[in-house]
Amino acid sequence: MRAILTLNAGSSSLKLGLFSEALETLGTGHVDRIGGEGRLKVLDGQGQPLPVPALGPEAFARHGAALATALEVFRVDFPALEIVAVGHRVVHGGTRHGAPERITEALMQELAALAPFAPLHQPHNLAGVRAALEAFAEAPQIACFDTAFHRNHPFVNDTFALPRSYYDKGVRRYGFHGLSYDYITGELARTEPALHAGRVVVAHLGSGASMCAIQGGRSVASTMGFSALDGLPMGTRSGQIDPGVLLYLMDQEGMTSAQISDLLYKDSGLKGLSGISNDMRELEGSDDPHAKDAIDYFTFRIRRELGGLAASMGGIDALVFCGGIGENSALVRARVCEGMEWIGITLDAEANAANAREIAHGPVRVLTIPTNEEIVIALAAQALLTA
Amino acid sequence: MRAILTLNAGSSSLKLGLFSEALETLGTGHVDRIGGEGRLKVLDGQGQPLPVPALGPEAFARHGAALATALEVFRVDFPALEIVAVGHRVVHGGTRHGAPERITEALMQELAALAPFAPLHQPHNLAGVRAALEAFAEAPQIACFDTAFHRNHPFVNDTFALPRSYYDKGVRRYGFHGLSYDYITGELARTEPALHAGRVVVAHLGSGASMCAIQGGRSVASTMGFSALDGLPMGTRSGQIDPGVLLYLMDQEGMTSAQISDLLYKDSGLKGLSGISNDMRELEGSDDPHAKDAIDYFTFRIRRELGGLAASMGGIDALVFCGGIGENSALVRARVCEGMEWIGITLDAEANAANAREIAHGPVRVLTIPTNEEIVIALAAQALLTA
Repeated sequence: MRAILTLNAGSSSLKLGLFSEALETLGTGHVDRIGGEGRLKVLDGQGQPLPVPALGPEAFARHGAALATALEVFRVDFPALEIVAVGHRVVHGGTRHGAPERITEALMQELAALAPFAPLHQPHNLAGVRAALEAFAEAPQIACFDTAFHRNHPFVNDTFALPRSYYDKGVRRYGFHGLSYDYITGELARTEPALHAGRVVVAHLGSGASMCAIQGGRSVASTMGFSALDGLPMGTRSGQIDPGVLLYLMDQEGMTSAQISDLLYKDSGLKGLSGISNDMRELEGSDDPHAKDAIDYFTFRIRRELGGLAASMGGIDALVFCGGIGENSALVRARVCEGMEWIGITLDAEANAANAREIAHGPVRVLTIPTNEEIVIALAAQALLTA
Repeated sequence: MRAILTLNAGSSSLKLGLFSEALETLGTGHVDRIGGEGRLKVLDGQGQPLPVPALGPEAFARHGAALATALEVFRVDFPALEIVAVGHRVVHGGTRHGAPERITEALMQELAALAPFAPLHQPHNLAGVRAALEAFAEAPQIACFDTAFHRNHPFVNDTFALPRSYYDKGVRRYGFHGLSYDYITGELARTEPALHAGRVVVAHLGSGASMCAIQGGRSVASTMGFSALDGLPMGTRSGQIDPGVLLYLMDQEGMTSAQISDLLYKDSGLKGLSGISNDMRELEGSDDPHAKDAIDYFTFRIRRELGGLAASMGGIDALVFCGGIGENSALVRARVCEGMEWIGITLDAEANAANAREIAHGPVRVLTIPTNEEIVIALAAQALLTA
């Protein structure tokens, strides 16, 4: 069985996607707690769990071991599994990479040099690539960048108001979630060519969250900037925050950059504001007023960015929700659309409650489109086979 | 001659306003380089310069000396000058002060305790108050806060997505330039009652710059947040910036909080982006492409915030320009209104070029209204005399 593998490696996690050469999903895998006790979940192509044997921590010692362990489980269903191409999610492609790129040693060195721009993600992404290069030395491999889709932002959406030397050395608004925006843009091109040619704001709302202004199929602005911290509040990340707050935390509270980073990446967002959970489903089910505050803030900041992104395109033709929250939370979608008649959005409450694809009937269309970042990576890897 | 004095004290500067009890302007003064060689400019009530004698540095040794020096010049015109009330601009009133407050020792201690929230401004404002308390021990004095106008923001515009404990200890979106917004709101109440009752965005564009969403005469949101750094880019301040950039500056460039503070407060904004000047007039006169970039970025960020603030009110009825740039730069106003037809703004190019009060003819009105922060302070001081 010839198969394409997609990999998304985090600090202690590894997500796998297994696809046929025709891009049918054969299975997915999710490893947690790499370097610790390890935990593996594997689903088959129909989304049914596959049995996982009892495994000791040595099976999850590093990304390479975790990868081998997950593939063993797939081999129960596909004994003659042969990985013929591998696609990797890599958070940062820097200023030069506006498209997926075949992995070479030179590229790996270039990507490693970008680690200072994404210290919490890039080194782990690359550890996953190294593991796959060792495991599948013969298979061509490709890197797909979360920043690539945004590489052609106009200067005003690419820069901060810092001395020019910072822009030159790469302190820019990269934008992330590009694989998701790429997928949605492709779906629009296929199913809604008029919208694809127009002005669309896509709200990718998951545990990470951002919004992107897409005009004529190209990203012109994103709420995420230099890092994955900016813009919308997220499960545990603060989103937009006054830089003066960081100076205050340093000067008045004596916090180190590591402590501030932990605060803003891990203890803020929905979790920080609610004091309850980073999980929107849990907040929706809670009657704690702080849970309500967190949902209020989350949905308000989406409305505010929606106005800002519309301004960056000179108007808006459609809003698209995607991501775990965007696809599944009728409440969040309803709250975002609340009071947005001025911009042309009138929610269809019934369609929204039914998780329909089309959920508004104002002049600005509102769609819910399930995103699929893995298939974008698989598609790039597939292209290696025919190149 | 009984007179009301207004004071605005900075780290090495002091701005004075002298008013009759009926609030006619009698004169204005501006001291620079306090603690250094000192420099004083004084204008009479008609805006004509008054002669200033040659003065040594001892005349400007501290705020108190500078105040006495400036008053001596006024006394040439008004030999029997008697200061009967003093109004002070104080940047920070914290969470408790939503209106001007008569100065007492208890208030001074409370305001001093807010210094960690505005370390670059609050201590100097209070040094000015102390100097005036010594000079005019008999005159009642009042503090007017830049934060006061914003004190009733809804929670979503008052908080960041940090753990709740930070909100409780005062890490909030205070908003500033409140005296200017207060003045403009009063002007609207007097001359445009329908707009005053509606949804207005005011753009206060000076060397400091912010925007405020005002609904029914009350501030509901501001682009400035916890500090005077957030929101729009300014003459030398960055405005909105990804918190990840500050973490990068700390971790990768080894910068201290003092260095980052200097960078973001003093070397960024129009000055940083252009590499030429923090002065919009100079940038408008330049044919350097970086000057154009800086103007592009400044006006684009205003448009983006305009969309965001409109969203925070569920729409917009009028945009008001004020402040040095807002009142005088037809180019900036034109660029801000460019491509904003979608929101209802259609610039009247001739009226704009003529610096007219009404400069658009779309459904959303656009006005230029000269602001006057001193008169707001003088009015508060005047109230002390009749209280």
